[in-house]
Amino acid sequence: MIKKTYLLSPGPTPLPEEVLAAAAVPLIHHRTPEFSSLYLEVTEGLKSVFLTGQDVFILACSGTGAMEAAVVNILSPGDRVVSVSGGKFGERWAHICRAYGLDVREIVLEWGRDFPKEKLAAELGACPGAKAVFVTLSETSTGALFDIRGYGEVVSKTEALLVVDGISGLGAAPCPMDDWNVDVLISASQKSFMAPPGLAYIALSRKAWSRAEKASLPRYYFDLRKARQSLAEGTSPWTPAISLIVQQKKALDRIKNMGLERLIEHHRILGEAVRAGVRGLRLELFAERPGNVLTAVKVPPGLDGRALVKVMQSKYGAHIAGGQEAYKGKIIRLAHLGYMGGFDALTALSALEMTLSELGHPHPAGDGLRAAQDILKEKWT
Amino acid sequence: MIKKTYLLSPGPTPLPEEVLAAAAVPLIHHRTPEFSSLYLEVTEGLKSVFLTGQDVFILACSGTGAMEAAVVNILSPGDRVVSVSGGKFGERWAHICRAYGLDVREIVLEWGRDFPKEKLAAELGACPGAKAVFVTLSETSTGALFDIRGYGEVVSKTEALLVVDGISGLGAAPCPMDDWNVDVLISASQKSFMAPPGLAYIALSRKAWSRAEKASLPRYYFDLRKARQSLAEGTSPWTPAISLIVQQKKALDRIKNMGLERLIEHHRILGEAVRAGVRGLRLELFAERPGNVLTAVKVPPGLDGRALVKVMQSKYGAHIAGGQEAYKGKIIRLAHLGYMGGFDALTALSALEMTLSELGHPHPAGDGLRAAQDILKEKWT
Repeated sequence: MIKKTYLLSPGPTPLPEEVLAAAAVPLIHHRTPEFSSLYLEVTEGLKSVFLTGQDVFILACSGTGAMEAAVVNILSPGDRVVSVSGGKFGERWAHICRAYGLDVREIVLEWGRDFPKEKLAAELGACPGAKAVFVTLSETSTGALFDIRGYGEVVSKTEALLVVDGISGLGAAPCPMDDWNVDVLISASQKSFMAPPGLAYIALSRKAWSRAEKASLPRYYFDLRKARQSLAEGTSPWTPAISLIVQQKKALDRIKNMGLERLIEHHRILGEAVRAGVRGLRLELFAERPGNVLTAVKVPPGLDGRALVKVMQSKYGAHIAGGQEAYKGKIIRLAHLGYMGGFDALTALSALEMTLSELGHPHPAGDGLRAAQDILKEKWT
Repeated sequence: MIKKTYLLSPGPTPLPEEVLAAAAVPLIHHRTPEFSSLYLEVTEGLKSVFLTGQDVFILACSGTGAMEAAVVNILSPGDRVVSVSGGKFGERWAHICRAYGLDVREIVLEWGRDFPKEKLAAELGACPGAKAVFVTLSETSTGALFDIRGYGEVVSKTEALLVVDGISGLGAAPCPMDDWNVDVLISASQKSFMAPPGLAYIALSRKAWSRAEKASLPRYYFDLRKARQSLAEGTSPWTPAISLIVQQKKALDRIKNMGLERLIEHHRILGEAVRAGVRGLRLELFAERPGNVLTAVKVPPGLDGRALVKVMQSKYGAHIAGGQEAYKGKIIRLAHLGYMGGFDALTALSALEMTLSELGHPHPAGDGLRAAQDILKEKWT
């Protein structure tokens, strides 16, 4: 058979055809009225996904660069901060904060576990003078969704800023920045924003901006004061990743036509279908409170998750993700993110079932697909 | 007439057709053997332009991000450094160093002036204990080329590291990293590398690596120790800008087929032709020691350089660059960089001549084009 590849990982995600085609158009220069008008349209489009009245800045970097930008723009050396580590990406907040000499109270959760807002309130109470709280909307290493709305209620009553990693979650799960009292929200191009990797996005609340003006951590490339000044002139302080911004514009057009609510609903339906499919295969979900970005599945005893992922990729061309760090071989992660449709969800489940057969793991044939299809049939719009 | 645009600026530069087309191919995942093999081919290709046996790292950022990476990876707070500011981009070294609390001895040149190695030797002598010297290969704001080989002779005798911004110059002017004793060399994708903006490149000498292991400036996203560890596994520590790397591969194939020497010769011929054309128009060159990346031209008295650039762009579609900072309106910059050919150089000169006519500036009709063509005719290969 023809070797066909299906990208089913939580970033990069497949790109809509018009987004791919847009990259093949010759570059325009970034100090022209034509580019400025494009740039401002993209920042407006991003604001309508961030749901904020504040500026959203486009950085030329990966999501991790925007995480660093969040840290260095609002804090000063020695500041006390709280971070919630529910997986590999939550842990990254603590790593960045420590690299910059901050006093980090890291709340380490068992991967996949939830963290209710009441616990955050207790931790914050025990950490007087904390200047920021770092959390994750959707933890890509576990598929867990966190209660950002609840954290906003807790943190907004204190002098701390609530900083949210929305890299994989924004657009797939609700996170209205202004309504939920999020002070710093970041995201990136290669997830539900349906563009290639290489751009990251960040917005600061008024409370965060007033902190940014006094914050003294060293910064240059990621200095948002410079970005704000340039944005007022319709541009970025450094040469922007022009072709990626052109592509992001195309993808934002799609999001605008669809509407953010329907985009979130799309992810909800896919998430439900995949979870039903996984249960139909008599497999267990990993996250206590699973989100709709990806579904992490426990690898059944006696099976090697690494072999599972390898067969799915090499034989079936189904590029799902394995577990990370201590969970390598113990979980697999099926993404339903961005430009993936109902049949892509079925592809992942079908490749999973065929691979289980191949590895000799007993499972109820077809039950996974049937369960997922039942959800899709009902909700398909 | 059809409004056709000619990109004649020093970055972004026009892209070869196969580089544009490569962006329209669906993304591959970055944690696959397929990507690793591509990634390693690109880093090998970069090494053959850097002319180094050291690793060259691919960062997802603009050139300025790589400048910051150079600073934070080799220095510690309070370190004394020397920087040479011969224009807007030379000045950026000093800005970044100050943002990180370094003790900067900034040598401020009049824009466009040269800086012989003997003067650097004298400055270094007067600045004992300097840990690094920051210079620029081709200063994009003035078109000046600097004597990196000579600086290497001077700096290699001291404990200082020689850090070279080769963002616009590398590939257009010789700068063999290992042979010339360059300790940190950076470049970016959107210049002679003929790819879109969004990638930056950096390599460290052995002397620089031994410093990097002790350097204590804070860093995370730009931490090259992490990049080195990941490269050994055939990948990057953060999600790479996959599509841009695919495009860079295509452009490097072209550079490989052509050979670095011929790429540099290409720029030399174009530079000579444009300088001859400018002289033919009885205009004056701005840089004391002009390089072959771009030609900066003094705007004759009585003319407004901003109007000149505007007419060239809006009427003729010829996107050349104007002067920056204090030189706005006083110089214009014609690039001959990357995927520009002989007729693109003539296009720039012709648009310039027609615009001079339109603005009522007397000039010898056709002499510029004739002079440039004479060079091109003789050297065309």
